[in-house]
Amino acid sequence: MKKTLLALAALTAFAGAASAQSSVTVFGIVDLSVNQVDNGGQKMTLLSSNQLNSNRLGFRGIEDLGGGLRAGFWLEGGMNNDTGLGGNASGGFDFARRSTVSLMGNWGEVRLGRDYTATFLNKTVFDPFGTNGLGSELNLESTLGSGAGTLVRANNMVGYFLPAMGGLYGQVQLAGGEGVTGNKYLGGRLGYAAGPINVAGAYGKTYKTGAMTADFKDINFGASWSMGFMTIEGMYGKVDYGSADQKKAMIGVLVPMGQSTLKASYIKASGSSDIYGATQFAFGYQYDLSKRTALYATYSSLNNDGSAAVGGKFTVGQGPAMTKGGDTSSGYNFGMRHSF
Amino acid sequence: MKKTLLALAALTAFAGAASAQSSVTVFGIVDLSVNQVDNGGQKMTLLSSNQLNSNRLGFRGIEDLGGGLRAGFWLEGGMNNDTGLGGNASGGFDFARRSTVSLMGNWGEVRLGRDYTATFLNKTVFDPFGTNGLGSELNLESTLGSGAGTLVRANNMVGYFLPAMGGLYGQVQLAGGEGVTGNKYLGGRLGYAAGPINVAGAYGKTYKTGAMTADFKDINFGASWSMGFMTIEGMYGKVDYGSADQKKAMIGVLVPMGQSTLKASYIKASGSSDIYGATQFAFGYQYDLSKRTALYATYSSLNNDGSAAVGGKFTVGQGPAMTKGGDTSSGYNFGMRHSF
Amino acid sequence: MKKTLLALAALTAFAGAASAQSSVTVFGIVDLSVNQVDNGGQKMTLLSSNQLNSNRLGFRGIEDLGGGLRAGFWLEGGMNNDTGLGGNASGGFDFARRSTVSLMGNWGEVRLGRDYTATFLNKTVFDPFGTNGLGSELNLESTLGSGAGTLVRANNMVGYFLPAMGGLYGQVQLAGGEGVTGNKYLGGRLGYAAGPINVAGAYGKTYKTGAMTADFKDINFGASWSMGFMTIEGMYGKVDYGSADQKKAMIGVLVPMGQSTLKASYIKASGSSDIYGATQFAFGYQYDLSKRTALYATYSSLNNDGSAAVGGKFTVGQGPAMTKGGDTSSGYNFGMRHSF
Repeated sequence: MKKTLLALAALTAFAGAASAQSSVTVFGIVDLSVNQVDNGGQKMTLLSSNQLNSNRLGFRGIEDLGGGLRAGFWLEGGMNNDTGLGGNASGGFDFARRSTVSLMGNWGEVRLGRDYTATFLNKTVFDPFGTNGLGSELNLESTLGSGAGTLVRANNMVGYFLPAMGGLYGQVQLAGGEGVTGNKYLGGRLGYAAGPINVAGAYGKTYKTGAMTADFKDINFGASWSMGFMTIEGMYGKVDYGSADQKKAMIGVLVPMGQSTLKASYIKASGSSDIYGATQFAFGYQYDLSKRTALYATYSSLNNDGSAAVGGKFTVGQGPAMTKGGDTSSGYNFGMRHSF
Repeated sequence: MKKTLLALAALTAFAGAASAQSSVTVFGIVDLSVNQVDNGGQKMTLLSSNQLNSNRLGFRGIEDLGGGLRAGFWLEGGMNNDTGLGGNASGGFDFARRSTVSLMGNWGEVRLGRDYTATFLNKTVFDPFGTNGLGSELNLESTLGSGAGTLVRANNMVGYFLPAMGGLYGQVQLAGGEGVTGNKYLGGRLGYAAGPINVAGAYGKTYKTGAMTADFKDINFGASWSMGFMTIEGMYGKVDYGSADQKKAMIGVLVPMGQSTLKASYIKASGSSDIYGATQFAFGYQYDLSKRTALYATYSSLNNDGSAAVGGKFTVGQGPAMTKGGDTSSGYNFGMRHSF
Repeated sequence: MKKTLLALAALTAFAGAASAQSSVTVFGIVDLSVNQVDNGGQKMTLLSSNQLNSNRLGFRGIEDLGGGLRAGFWLEGGMNNDTGLGGNASGGFDFARRSTVSLMGNWGEVRLGRDYTATFLNKTVFDPFGTNGLGSELNLESTLGSGAGTLVRANNMVGYFLPAMGGLYGQVQLAGGEGVTGNKYLGGRLGYAAGPINVAGAYGKTYKTGAMTADFKDINFGASWSMGFMTIEGMYGKVDYGSADQKKAMIGVLVPMGQSTLKASYIKASGSSDIYGATQFAFGYQYDLSKRTALYATYSSLNNDGSAAVGGKFTVGQGPAMTKGGDTSSGYNFGMRHSF
């Protein structure tokens, strides 16, 4: 911060740098729905957050530095709007969805901070339900008891993102462990999008740290093909941790009809143990009142292969837990998403 | 969130919906005062928050969807500006004051999320001190040991609000318990405001859940009559929990004189036990430097009927506790409220 | 809050005061760097926050009340952008960097709330590294085991700041203890800035409260002399707690060269025990891409005099701790700061 020799100015100098012209975008999503879930016969009705998109409040901006250079920041945190609590484990609001500073040029982008991992992106981008709600691909996801904390995001990342080069896109990310188990990560993603086609592959390794007994590895591929009247999406992924593994395949479809969109997905997971196996069908309907506001409804049914449940099921932090493996979870919701 | 087939766009698609035109209002209140309290002979001087209005920071907006429809969101959290801590029990900031999404039309408003309960509104609207500070009606309030958590707000609410219909207004709210004791709630409020008159009644029931041994019921009525040179306000309420009850009656007055307003209230509480009984006199003076900024001073005296103290007294979380029932609390403050 | 007699308006009256014209500035700093530290032979590479300036998000505004009067508010919290966590001990975001409301006139400013203490200001204003990062003066600072919590900021403050009077500036601050050990504080600062010269002295006392066995006293002086091609800065301070004390002397230099600035400081601390003694050399380079965005690099080396370590070293909350006294900490970083 520049020191200033003026009297009163000195007293407020701690925020001096902020006195330059500022352009902050305040943005967010509030998404609430009424959910009815049935986990192995235990039913509950809930007011739930995050069912079409993840609830969030954020602050971001880009500064043109001249000569093709740009600087940017992005601070974004989540919240549960059914209770008003923030996304932090303590109930407070934080910026754990994304907290980055970037330098961008025609050579690409260097990004520092907490962010999505490269290996998460295909899972959400090629999922018709965007890894949210009853139809989320994440309902079947397992980290195989590894303790890897990098399934969705990682702390302490240094990332490089390719610039726009025809349809090619990609990124490489390195996350420091800094003494925290399961955060040391190296991952990359490469994709190609042109016209109706988008394909991408990603690979990431979460290094054996702390009590982990092996590296945790995640490889996945996704593709979508837009035919105008409908878009087909597919994803295949495999995670490995020592002798344990889980494979997942997903096929999905989006059918736009004016302001409406029909969605469906089928996901099958299997692995080294039947506790990693499950099958999920999901159907969704979205009605866009505007670009920012949508009403939606979802139905989903998840059947466990084995004697224990995999993944987060439909209740992520709420409602009755699955009591025994082999059970079926099903649920439906109807809600409203408003973004700003 | 719409999927995008463009390369770099895909990388930032997680906030894609926010790229539509946005209109967020950032608002809040910072209110700090020097308070001198005397609780049964124990004196303390404090810098206190929330003494004229409740401190808050919020984000809200309304989108016109066309055809008379509107969507709205409201995220608002409290804080203690004497320490900078947020309103969460952990000390972090959250959105527990209000966290809602709404769909509005000429048929009224459907509102989902955390919000004030219908039964709280008369207590604050017809209190000259707005349920804040030394003169607050809440100083005498009891939930009778029920564990009901719905005195002011409730989680998981689905609410319906009447549209403007002459002077008639009203709302019905249903809050899901979701396994949390004392949050399952059904309440309503109906009122009429025209010219100098405003009257409203409310009734709410917090269902017996968890360790509760009965439903907690709250019924209250309020009225105000504006005579130009002064406004008279009154409120009567009764809460019930099994064989325990508390009745409260309040009469208040507001006298505007240019930029100044004089306020006074007298509140008497009594109930099934003298620990629910108390009497409070309060006098206030507010000087509006502008619509947003006011200086104020308050004097209040609360006398307990019984051998234990009812309500929060004047010190809500700070200062010396009442040591024995039958004591008198008194206090005065002078402070400044700035809203933005 | 003004009561309103209109039906729907009454329902949203809780934020009614906010409906007046509002002018909120959203501001902040995101600063991330790659740090390599070596604490007595234990090395670690970290992605670190706050290394050039302290990371923050804030909301502030000033209202012109007419007649030379102004009202202002300032809400500012810190965060660690390597993890996205807020500055609160719980990991949530709060407003503990500054949380104040002010009334200002040509007679000066009355400021209420949580803020920097008068005695902290010289330490940061006359430090070429602004009490941030590897070169921070605070690396050598001790509160002598007193439990004083007022080294940087204090809760519950009532402060008065002089108006602009030629080059004279100053402030007096009184902080209430309110039953919290080490927060009761009285301090002042007086300075003079004119042309190339800025000098200031401060004195503060943290009253013996709770388990403290004596008052904690802090006295310091700072000066800077800008010669155009370079600025020389110096600071001397002494803290006392019963029979324990620590003295610190710092000399620093800032050399601007176009968009670049070279910085260096030498700090020597000594005291009643050699555990309060240490010496630090630091060198820094800052390259301003714009007023808001800078790249920077720092090298610093701190040598402890005694058998235990003083101060926070370079790792504030992260990385390997010093294992034995007499060790040397050294480290370097390179990072990016973006303010908005």
